[in-house]
Amino acid sequence: MTARFVPPGATPSAVSIDAITGPGGDDGRLPRDAARNTAGVAAHALLTALGERRSVVLSIAKGLPLASGLGGSAASAAAAVVAVDALLDAHAPLDMLIACALEGEGLGVRSAHPDNIAPALCGGFVLVRHPDPPDIIRLPVPAELMAVVVHPETEIETAKTRALLGTTVPLADAIRQWANLGALVDGLHRGDFALIARALEDTIAEPRRAPLVPGLPQIKRAAVDAGALGCSFSGSGPSIFALCRGTDSARRVADAMTRAVKAHIGGEPQTYVSAIALQGARVVSSCAL
Amino acid sequence: MTARFVPPGATPSAVSIDAITGPGGDDGRLPRDAARNTAGVAAHALLTALGERRSVVLSIAKGLPLASGLGGSAASAAAAVVAVDALLDAHAPLDMLIACALEGEGLGVRSAHPDNIAPALCGGFVLVRHPDPPDIIRLPVPAELMAVVVHPETEIETAKTRALLGTTVPLADAIRQWANLGALVDGLHRGDFALIARALEDTIAEPRRAPLVPGLPQIKRAAVDAGALGCSFSGSGPSIFALCRGTDSARRVADAMTRAVKAHIGGEPQTYVSAIALQGARVVSSCAL
Repeated sequence: MTARFVPPGATPSAVSIDAITGPGGDDGRLPRDAARNTAGVAAHALLTALGERRSVVLSIAKGLPLASGLGGSAASAAAAVVAVDALLDAHAPLDMLIACALEGEGLGVRSAHPDNIAPALCGGFVLVRHPDPPDIIRLPVPAELMAVVVHPETEIETAKTRALLGTTVPLADAIRQWANLGALVDGLHRGDFALIARALEDTIAEPRRAPLVPGLPQIKRAAVDAGALGCSFSGSGPSIFALCRGTDSARRVADAMTRAVKAHIGGEPQTYVSAIALQGARVVSSCAL
Repeated sequence: MTARFVPPGATPSAVSIDAITGPGGDDGRLPRDAARNTAGVAAHALLTALGERRSVVLSIAKGLPLASGLGGSAASAAAAVVAVDALLDAHAPLDMLIACALEGEGLGVRSAHPDNIAPALCGGFVLVRHPDPPDIIRLPVPAELMAVVVHPETEIETAKTRALLGTTVPLADAIRQWANLGALVDGLHRGDFALIARALEDTIAEPRRAPLVPGLPQIKRAAVDAGALGCSFSGSGPSIFALCRGTDSARRVADAMTRAVKAHIGGEPQTYVSAIALQGARVVSSCAL
């Protein structure tokens, strides 16, 4: 995300987008109209919150695919507020950045939960104890912990998968999820990879959404057989993540998952292998005008 | 709990109870028949599991009131297996002690969840990630953390309060509880009392069981106003616990809660102030025959 001031004379506090490039944006499906683009709306929200009358233009290099379950909308909104904040040298507080990015993510209707925005801004493992006002807890990230994400060549609409969740859950499933969640937090604190592996069991979202992705059990099996600590949907899918211990293990798991996705879903999946980013959206370069 | 061998000649692997004393047992409501007493059943289960043919007699000094929500049945069962294990010098593994105590707690029908048994045996804060086979996680206990428990002079049947929970929960409540649970585990690891306080919010059991205890909101308010980190039902009630930072704070909270319980529930409540016990059931004295 690149943010620049536009010359004086334009509409005050206006945001425009002059380019969208990159593998996630070059098919023309992301709107150039700033009022319909998550980055544009987020940037505008921050200008307004700061009482800033100057106008900015954004150039977006979109790396994440659309509707992938990887939080691409949140990533754009987070990058926009960080870029505009740096451009203005505003040092806005985290709560303000979160609020403005949430407005962007929801295209003006503020998103209800910063589950994507908070990690995109903070990096690392993030627990959102309370959405509004946001109570954000940065959990420890054990050394050696690696993430593998495989994005099948298919799209799922978030709204559709959200509906699959329903509005109630069996108490027994909820209790099991509470226990696993507490164990995961404990495992991250201790760097106990065996416990992290046992805790990576989703009794709520995964069983309800699994029908949307054929072959999920086989893909999970391939990941775990190759050494993954655990494997499940990223967000509402169709992307599938695995956590692994160490780079070599992550590469083996990535290969196994990619083969399994090709076999059971088909198409050409995109595969990512990464350490857990310890920083969120940040300034990578800047130049004075 | 005192365990002794009975002289040879009696029925093999038999358990008998020769006395039940103490404030929780002297009203004669706890059965002396070992087959109908949680401690007796637990002790018998351990003798059987160990293939032990000698017979034991138990003397029970019962400190916890009946149907209090303080896990008194589990405490008796845990004490029995620890006492018998020590008598036999068996050093049975924790999983076996848990299994036998669970059988005692359920009077032969093995209880489904070691949520009381595991902390009674292990001490400290205990997270049960999985009930069977038990996956028990000992969470850290921050220095200065104190517990206050007020037991009103009233009884609630566990079965009745369990029914109030129902079998499903709204997803929104479950999500909030997940977030709070993760935050509590994180707060215990960091010794972050402010976070522990924010996380001590029960969106599941407390609102559904609150109608059983009149004045709960006022009692909670009294506790928090006096400095408690948080306050809620102990188990299925009617006992009410608070967590506090430091002894002075705990004493103030205990006074405030006791007054509020007297005002809103009446009777003569029993009040306990204690550090978090770092050890579970243990041998306090032994003598060779």
